[in-house]
Amino acid sequence: MAVSSTIGRLGEFQLIARMTSGLASTDDVLLGPGDDAAIVRAPDQRVVASMDLLVEGRHFRRDWSSPHDIGRKAAAQNFADIVAMGARPTALLIGFAAPADLPASWVDEFTAGLRVECAAAGGTVVGGDLVRADEVTIAVTALGDLEGRQAVCRDGANVGDLVAVTGHLGLSAAGHALLEAGFDGPSACVTEHRHPSPPYARAKAAAEHGATAMLDVSDGLVQDLGHIATASEVAIALTAGSLRPETALEHAVLRLRDVGEQRSAVDFMLAGGEDHALAATFPPDAGPPPHWSRIGVVAGGSGVLIDGEPAAVRGWDHFD
Amino acid sequence: MAVSSTIGRLGEFQLIARMTSGLASTDDVLLGPGDDAAIVRAPDQRVVASMDLLVEGRHFRRDWSSPHDIGRKAAAQNFADIVAMGARPTALLIGFAAPADLPASWVDEFTAGLRVECAAAGGTVVGGDLVRADEVTIAVTALGDLEGRQAVCRDGANVGDLVAVTGHLGLSAAGHALLEAGFDGPSACVTEHRHPSPPYARAKAAAEHGATAMLDVSDGLVQDLGHIATASEVAIALTAGSLRPETALEHAVLRLRDVGEQRSAVDFMLAGGEDHALAATFPPDAGPPPHWSRIGVVAGGSGVLIDGEPAAVRGWDHFD
Repeated sequence: MAVSSTIGRLGEFQLIARMTSGLASTDDVLLGPGDDAAIVRAPDQRVVASMDLLVEGRHFRRDWSSPHDIGRKAAAQNFADIVAMGARPTALLIGFAAPADLPASWVDEFTAGLRVECAAAGGTVVGGDLVRADEVTIAVTALGDLEGRQAVCRDGANVGDLVAVTGHLGLSAAGHALLEAGFDGPSACVTEHRHPSPPYARAKAAAEHGATAMLDVSDGLVQDLGHIATASEVAIALTAGSLRPETALEHAVLRLRDVGEQRSAVDFMLAGGEDHALAATFPPDAGPPPHWSRIGVVAGGSGVLIDGEPAAVRGWDHFD
Repeated sequence: MAVSSTIGRLGEFQLIARMTSGLASTDDVLLGPGDDAAIVRAPDQRVVASMDLLVEGRHFRRDWSSPHDIGRKAAAQNFADIVAMGARPTALLIGFAAPADLPASWVDEFTAGLRVECAAAGGTVVGGDLVRADEVTIAVTALGDLEGRQAVCRDGANVGDLVAVTGHLGLSAAGHALLEAGFDGPSACVTEHRHPSPPYARAKAAAEHGATAMLDVSDGLVQDLGHIATASEVAIALTAGSLRPETALEHAVLRLRDVGEQRSAVDFMLAGGEDHALAATFPPDAGPPPHWSRIGVVAGGSGVLIDGEPAAVRGWDHFD
């Protein structure tokens, strides 16, 4: 197969063969790609299911991210939704729309990226669809199993609970700002934008620790905590001083200041977007689980407060 | 809400509220839209899952199909994949990418179309994603439950089995050709192109009748039967005379002949595409189930034969 081959020249069936060749299977896969539908184990008699779309130019840029990065990101942001329910990832379905002149090697690297993230999270690709389109658009559905646990939803936070986070807050948004300004570092930020690293294992630990509410931070911390506040009919009261920026984020802010960017490290942490960190509430007595940082408490009232004042931070709207 | 509102003016969260307002629930939905992921019952401890992408200009045209049609089609073609496994549809996830200037009323009608098809097939919308893009792209994942039955895959056909079909063969492709030529009828063809009508109940009946292989006819009958032949390592031997075109298809062919279209009714039936009819193989003794028509037998060898000759019919390639 020539390296210069395009997906249009390969055609649908060869491309599917290429994307599924050597695919890792797991005990969860009862029927993988190649039939009308896949069959996945759901031993818990409930299946957790989430879907995300990634659109070229909006969720990734082919000149900023390698196909391997984009494959990892596509899988990671969906697996993050599954683990944020307290579930174990089992399977991915991938819808892939692309121009016929896309190099076949691009798809190979994208597929490799998907597989790396699947190995990290524990699921595998079981099916999908391939179609031609003017732009690269990737649809991902992730499935998961609750292993007999109660799902951790957004509506379970109680007044008095503590609020905690884990994962990289603000790095992805800073990475985006850095790339936009023409910088290629600090690498921890740029890498986190190219492919987030959701703390998968810490989600299960949180569920087992008794988390009362949990979510994947994808639209900015304040906006996402606002979803917990609304669903649980409580207020989330944050302490700004408890938000401790990572060193890479502080370096990014300094670098960005030179090109006129006014946002502080805490601004990026509160309203960043695409963090794919986790936020959760826990009963107050036990404290947060290991690797989770306490950032506030659940109070009576509504909305998100920062040091007692309503948060005026705006998150991500996908139709802006 | 003004009728002239666009989805960009509504914004993501209002649009989600609008798409999910008054959504029918079913016993299968343990958690619907609004959290990181949905939770769907999987009483069989296996979940059947399929994904399709529909891209504007490739799978539908907004000037040919109403948003209601497109909603029905998006749901129907995925539910067809689920029932073709012998499963009962339980849930849909919808990824919706669209330009910000798309009228909100378009989305309302699309949503209504989805719901009509959900009611016909038995599943319901449990989640999804909304993002902005230049073109309308719709990703659909359907989930289903096998109710304790063995899945009907493509690899189970045995030499001596009979081959049968049910549903509308060729009408959708003829409808596409009619619209392309500027005709708006015969309406049975054009309607079938705008929203296919998979024979959901007949799939379950086939599974219960002992179907050894089954699939949704979406890429053309010959190409799809070729998938059964390959997976089952058999030949599928069709009798051309057993393919009886519906009257509407014969009328369409006559009309299309005036504009230079050479394809016969049987050509449309063999290579049409987007039929979303069902094809299956059954043990020979019992005959096909009610409403299924026998069109051939499973023989030793490989490929698809028509009256003993290898079929030279070409189906649908999604990267052509």
